[in-house]
Amino acid sequence: MGGSEIKPKRLQNRDMNPELTVDDNRFRRRFERFNEIGATERDGVDRPSLSDTNKEARDTLVEWFADAGLAVTVDEMGNVFGRTDGTVPNEPPVLFGSHVDSQYNGGRFDGVIGVLGALEIIETLNEENVQTQRPLEVVAWSNEEGVRFQPDMLGSGVYTGTFDRGYAYDRTDKDGHRFGDELDRIGYKGDAPAAGDPHCYFELHVEQGPYLDENECSVGVVEGVYGFSWLNARFEGTADHAGPSPMHLRHDAMVATANVVTGVRRLTAATGTDLVGTVGSIDVSPNSINVIPETVEFTIDLRSYDNAVVDEAVSQVRDEIRWAADRENVAWELEEIMRVDADPFDTDCIETVARAAETVGAPSMRMVSGAGHDANYLNDVCPTSMIFVPSVDGVSHTEDEYTAWKDVVVGTNVLLQAVCEKANEE
Amino acid sequence: MGGSEIKPKRLQNRDMNPELTVDDNRFRRRFERFNEIGATERDGVDRPSLSDTNKEARDTLVEWFADAGLAVTVDEMGNVFGRTDGTVPNEPPVLFGSHVDSQYNGGRFDGVIGVLGALEIIETLNEENVQTQRPLEVVAWSNEEGVRFQPDMLGSGVYTGTFDRGYAYDRTDKDGHRFGDELDRIGYKGDAPAAGDPHCYFELHVEQGPYLDENECSVGVVEGVYGFSWLNARFEGTADHAGPSPMHLRHDAMVATANVVTGVRRLTAATGTDLVGTVGSIDVSPNSINVIPETVEFTIDLRSYDNAVVDEAVSQVRDEIRWAADRENVAWELEEIMRVDADPFDTDCIETVARAAETVGAPSMRMVSGAGHDANYLNDVCPTSMIFVPSVDGVSHTEDEYTAWKDVVVGTNVLLQAVCEKANEE
Repeated sequence: MGGSEIKPKRLQNRDMNPELTVDDNRFRRRFERFNEIGATERDGVDRPSLSDTNKEARDTLVEWFADAGLAVTVDEMGNVFGRTDGTVPNEPPVLFGSHVDSQYNGGRFDGVIGVLGALEIIETLNEENVQTQRPLEVVAWSNEEGVRFQPDMLGSGVYTGTFDRGYAYDRTDKDGHRFGDELDRIGYKGDAPAAGDPHCYFELHVEQGPYLDENECSVGVVEGVYGFSWLNARFEGTADHAGPSPMHLRHDAMVATANVVTGVRRLTAATGTDLVGTVGSIDVSPNSINVIPETVEFTIDLRSYDNAVVDEAVSQVRDEIRWAADRENVAWELEEIMRVDADPFDTDCIETVARAAETVGAPSMRMVSGAGHDANYLNDVCPTSMIFVPSVDGVSHTEDEYTAWKDVVVGTNVLLQAVCEKANEE
Repeated sequence: MGGSEIKPKRLQNRDMNPELTVDDNRFRRRFERFNEIGATERDGVDRPSLSDTNKEARDTLVEWFADAGLAVTVDEMGNVFGRTDGTVPNEPPVLFGSHVDSQYNGGRFDGVIGVLGALEIIETLNEENVQTQRPLEVVAWSNEEGVRFQPDMLGSGVYTGTFDRGYAYDRTDKDGHRFGDELDRIGYKGDAPAAGDPHCYFELHVEQGPYLDENECSVGVVEGVYGFSWLNARFEGTADHAGPSPMHLRHDAMVATANVVTGVRRLTAATGTDLVGTVGSIDVSPNSINVIPETVEFTIDLRSYDNAVVDEAVSQVRDEIRWAADRENVAWELEEIMRVDADPFDTDCIETVARAAETVGAPSMRMVSGAGHDANYLNDVCPTSMIFVPSVDGVSHTEDEYTAWKDVVVGTNVLLQAVCEKANEE
């Protein structure tokens, strides 16, 4: 049972109870109803951060949280919390959740299952009259996706002190709308400070990669998140008419860029590591059919779970850019605009998830995440780990994103067991 | 004197008179005054087709044409003509001119010298009391550049029957403004039909390539214009998160495109011909730093004076695209959106220009044009050739475009001699 990388560790199985499981049908009905909000024709959802559909999704959450007996708080970043008391007064809560903002025409699972799964756990515990020692706190973070307002993970970023609130409020979308103003407009600029001191944090999320699907595992025990470097590069050559300009006199910024794009692909293959590299964005000027490209601005995304591999890749990309510029005799610039180190999660939380997967009987494997999550920032302030469920064919961020419902349920049951164990520990 | 390719032919030196020359100072003053219209900070001009500055340039032309005693006509395409009678009634005129619309932030010489040079010739003949047998007709064609409304050379294209007037009127700019409406707005939708039956056509223009400058020639005797193929290509791969997507499962439309960009560069070198090839426009979707490019649409511009070379290059580009798509396992499309055969000018007109250069004593060379001009369309309906003057470093379509004034004057004197010869022939 499980993938080849399963390394179950039999530690003390503290407060796990395999008889305690979520209600598949209740959960499914809620999931379907929730995803009617901003539903797209091709079975996706369109609920970008602070949009009208995102507001509607938030309103629904607040209503459902309250119906489940949770004390609802909206903080100054629009992060929505629902809290239940523990049996021991004044203990820091076990925090768990994810996000409900989506990509433009995104998928129905990304983020949603982590929040609705958390709510389903509360409902299950209510129904079974289980009260944990520590408080439980469910959360939906603001602006995880970063498609409308950059950077992504703004809500958890401010909560954990990574960003200033003022910085976050001043982010603008492409139409010039400020994050702070839009938060106000949809009625989710709350009074509570965006801060907290949780006992630990768990997040259930779709993998967004193919490994669970390929290995026929229902659950990924996430040990950490890749580090990455984001680079902005720019070549400046000479714009000239595509007809009368002889080849030997050209300084074509696009030819230089193409050499770097193929260079990045080559070096990911050449390193023999877990390095992945992507040139995702390219802007050509003047971008005219009969004019030699004068400037090209482009981005490079380099990731590995080994910070030294990212370092080396940045250095190699710099070489590729310098060589390409020399060959074409164009000017070049390269700037690292973001650098995030690989982020290993808390060992104890990881093992809690592994035990929970074993308790539930979920086919599981250990893995690291190539994508960033709110859990990264939470890991800075409290013990954290994540639970992944499969993305069929590794697809995410599109309407084709799909996770088998049975895997969503299994993942949620793993979250339930992990939460209960941590909520009953000293 | 002259470049290595000078092949002067001593034919009957019919009505050429080296004593007859344009007025350098008058011409220069007019050139400087004209280029105050839409002047940019970096010594260029911004007078795109049917803009307010283009209207102001037209108004100035109409005033100056009338002041020079020309009968001014504006046709239904906004082509502006100024005509003087010949001594023999009802003869088709010798037509000569160019255009005064510019690129966005374009140069001061491109088009302008051909129109103001033509006007200067009229002034010179007036001053010297020279009346030719045939009428002379000066022209400024509409929308030569094609930066605001595509395709380019709309004015001469309708005049010569290449395009329908309705087709031209329906062209829209990126803001949805129709060519016909904008022509009306600036008051240049004239009543005269866009048609004519000229005896022949000459056009003085900047080379827009480096050959005259490299060879220290003042004048190019233009024997024809390169043919070209314009291709639209498209790769469609799979958009996916740049982090968790392993390299071996990617279908990256940008990697495929980069292979074609370098392939086009390679094949121009490999053919051993005059082929030039450019990938000028690239549009990536979703164009996000952390998403693998799903689709890339791009253009390829292939040119040669030999139609068979263009044919072979199109076939080779198709191979490059197919190979790149196979390697990356992405879908591909390729469409030829425009094909123009190489266009040899009229032998007699070419030799007239060559004799005129010799008469003027201009260092000259025979050449072909890599860029298209209004002269291409005129060549379909009457004997045509062109006179080039140097573009320093081959630069055009930017504010850095420059031609030494002495070369502009020499080129205009060559045009004067050519026009006089043709205007006095049977």
